[in-house]
Amino acid sequence: MEPSPALVLDDDPSVGTAAVSTPALAVDAQYWADPAPLPLDCGQTLSAVQVAYETWGRLNAAADNALVVCHALTGDAHAAGVAPGATRPGWWDALIGPGRGLDTDRYFVVCANVLGGCRGTTGPASPHPADGRPYGSRFPPLTVRDIVRLQARLAQALGVQSIVAVIGGSLGGMQALEWAILDPDRVRAVVTIGASLAHSAQGIAYNLIGREAIHLDPAWQGGDYYASGRHPDRGLALARMIGLITYQSAESLRRKFDRRLAQDSTAPPDPATRFQVESYLQYQGSSLVRRFDANSYLVLSRAMDLHDLAYGRGSLAQALGQVPPHTRTLAIGISSDILFPPGLQQGIVRALHAAGRQATYAEIDSPWGHDAFLLEYDQLTPLLRQFLATVSDGSHRGVAGHGSR
Amino acid sequence: MEPSPALVLDDDPSVGTAAVSTPALAVDAQYWADPAPLPLDCGQTLSAVQVAYETWGRLNAAADNALVVCHALTGDAHAAGVAPGATRPGWWDALIGPGRGLDTDRYFVVCANVLGGCRGTTGPASPHPADGRPYGSRFPPLTVRDIVRLQARLAQALGVQSIVAVIGGSLGGMQALEWAILDPDRVRAVVTIGASLAHSAQGIAYNLIGREAIHLDPAWQGGDYYASGRHPDRGLALARMIGLITYQSAESLRRKFDRRLAQDSTAPPDPATRFQVESYLQYQGSSLVRRFDANSYLVLSRAMDLHDLAYGRGSLAQALGQVPPHTRTLAIGISSDILFPPGLQQGIVRALHAAGRQATYAEIDSPWGHDAFLLEYDQLTPLLRQFLATVSDGSHRGVAGHGSR
Repeated sequence: MEPSPALVLDDDPSVGTAAVSTPALAVDAQYWADPAPLPLDCGQTLSAVQVAYETWGRLNAAADNALVVCHALTGDAHAAGVAPGATRPGWWDALIGPGRGLDTDRYFVVCANVLGGCRGTTGPASPHPADGRPYGSRFPPLTVRDIVRLQARLAQALGVQSIVAVIGGSLGGMQALEWAILDPDRVRAVVTIGASLAHSAQGIAYNLIGREAIHLDPAWQGGDYYASGRHPDRGLALARMIGLITYQSAESLRRKFDRRLAQDSTAPPDPATRFQVESYLQYQGSSLVRRFDANSYLVLSRAMDLHDLAYGRGSLAQALGQVPPHTRTLAIGISSDILFPPGLQQGIVRALHAAGRQATYAEIDSPWGHDAFLLEYDQLTPLLRQFLATVSDGSHRGVAGHGSR
Repeated sequence: MEPSPALVLDDDPSVGTAAVSTPALAVDAQYWADPAPLPLDCGQTLSAVQVAYETWGRLNAAADNALVVCHALTGDAHAAGVAPGATRPGWWDALIGPGRGLDTDRYFVVCANVLGGCRGTTGPASPHPADGRPYGSRFPPLTVRDIVRLQARLAQALGVQSIVAVIGGSLGGMQALEWAILDPDRVRAVVTIGASLAHSAQGIAYNLIGREAIHLDPAWQGGDYYASGRHPDRGLALARMIGLITYQSAESLRRKFDRRLAQDSTAPPDPATRFQVESYLQYQGSSLVRRFDANSYLVLSRAMDLHDLAYGRGSLAQALGQVPPHTRTLAIGISSDILFPPGLQQGIVRALHAAGRQATYAEIDSPWGHDAFLLEYDQLTPLLRQFLATVSDGSHRGVAGHGSR
């Protein structure tokens, strides 16, 4: 709960924690080419889809010890370990490893880069199979369900018969909830952190600002910028800056920066005055540009807006009625989250209970806002450990069709 | 507390209230040319400064019945009444008039457009005295104190001997607090609504986003766009959209829009899906462009960032020590304000008490966020009426130098 100055100039909020990856952790970025066309909710179909993923631990003989970790908007498959040549561990390294909250001595952990992303899985910067040029403006709009359907195919391809739990925060938490409905026979439990049954009006509003910032950058060129030598770096940086404000809180920004001046800055009212919070946001905005694609930001933030468990399923109650009665859900709220306030996680639990389904609420007490799911490992570790211990093993899940294990 | 759908497509949140201006209210935009150069906190000096202002009611013989109303970032001097040719009353019309909270039968109410603005008072779009061309990028950075010093000169020019109260919300509330320090002999009371002792790190962060949006618009041209025929309309609209989110709350956006679709929009996941909250923000952003100048937005939002009562006065305690002991302050918080949470108003009262000064806290219970100061007249009216009744008349204020009244 102390101020966390180490965060100030780091690219990733997960840096600054005490946990450091052990060399024993395997880091193997792998690629899977989906042999079948992927029909999307929008009516279009993607073909020649590739998925980048990493795994930790080993799939057991029954193929029923998998944990699926879903990343957030600008995350990627590299959830744990130090990649060759990299200096930083993955974004959930403190949670994934031998003896950690997601214990790789026991579980087979899989994390895939999302469809529409830009870190190895097919997205707007990928070559269109028809002409080999980047999709750009031709990339179709996606839903969280499209993202999950592709990952379920990956799980199938990896031979996973049963998933102990699908776990994710933010956009990852939205995916986890959809998994329970879209792959009910395989998924035994869901952990959703800082997410919601449907994206809020305020969340849609913030995402709109980010997209308009990218559209405003003349280098965006309607989305077909890849061959031009100009990328919408300023627009993407601005979108990131807006996001970063919503991932924190008034209190976390006060603790980290208050009204302190940036280094070498002059005091107000000098026109050259720069506050630390400004240099932080500008630095972080510029940092994202080096590892992320603006069109992916557009597609994935829109997928968040479209997230609504009820959509196309009649009603929320009917949608949740598709979650099997044996599926367990842990919804974790973050006390200071301004983007997904705790009430939204409590709403998930209430709705599941109303549908006669199992669900538990837990709350991370943190001043760091939405980002707490990337920071508060001391609280997340026991929550995850205890919850996973309550999930029945594959032999008790009572689902027909997997009796051969 | 009911949903307020009338707000959805209106330019100004003050519209949609029951109050309608009575024709009996005088609406007289007037202009005052400051004969003296105005030294600014940044070290520069402005000359040939003009102020646009409106007044309601009459200054009494003792010239001690004035109320000064200070407007917010994109407001103007037209606080009440219907201007000739206009269809809408001023932004605080429901509070200013005969028998209203700020009773024009009793008080002489003055509201001036702020320095740096674009509604009649000298700002970046005004002609530079040296060459008659708009200031543009030559306009100096301002502080809230600069804004208040000019208004104090106006009060002097209008013959106001004593001010019953300076009243404002948001940037207007910051001005009110500075008035108490900068013109201590004239000001008997201050009402500050949704403001703070110093702008918060989160507030600075949001303002940075708005300025970067304007800077990102190629039509901004470094601020010298007036003669080019191209104005940074898209950047200003985006800045406004960001502001609007912070003026509301997750709950108010949920009540007004939730996930409803815009008229004639198709349902998700169709790529053409548009949510009402998106069309609302885009409409409101475009609306501001018709009445506001992007450079004024830059200058005034920066003045908010620089707002800090302690700056240049040693410490906060020393700054508040300059408020006379007889000055009364009413700090009004708004329960759902995400830009100036109630704790900031409570902080004003605590700091004044610690300095041995009079101060009272009151809270507006509202779901509408920061905008509540433009909406919750049923709560504001009795608060203002009761508070003003406690302010001593000029003869009891115990200040030397005005005994000739």
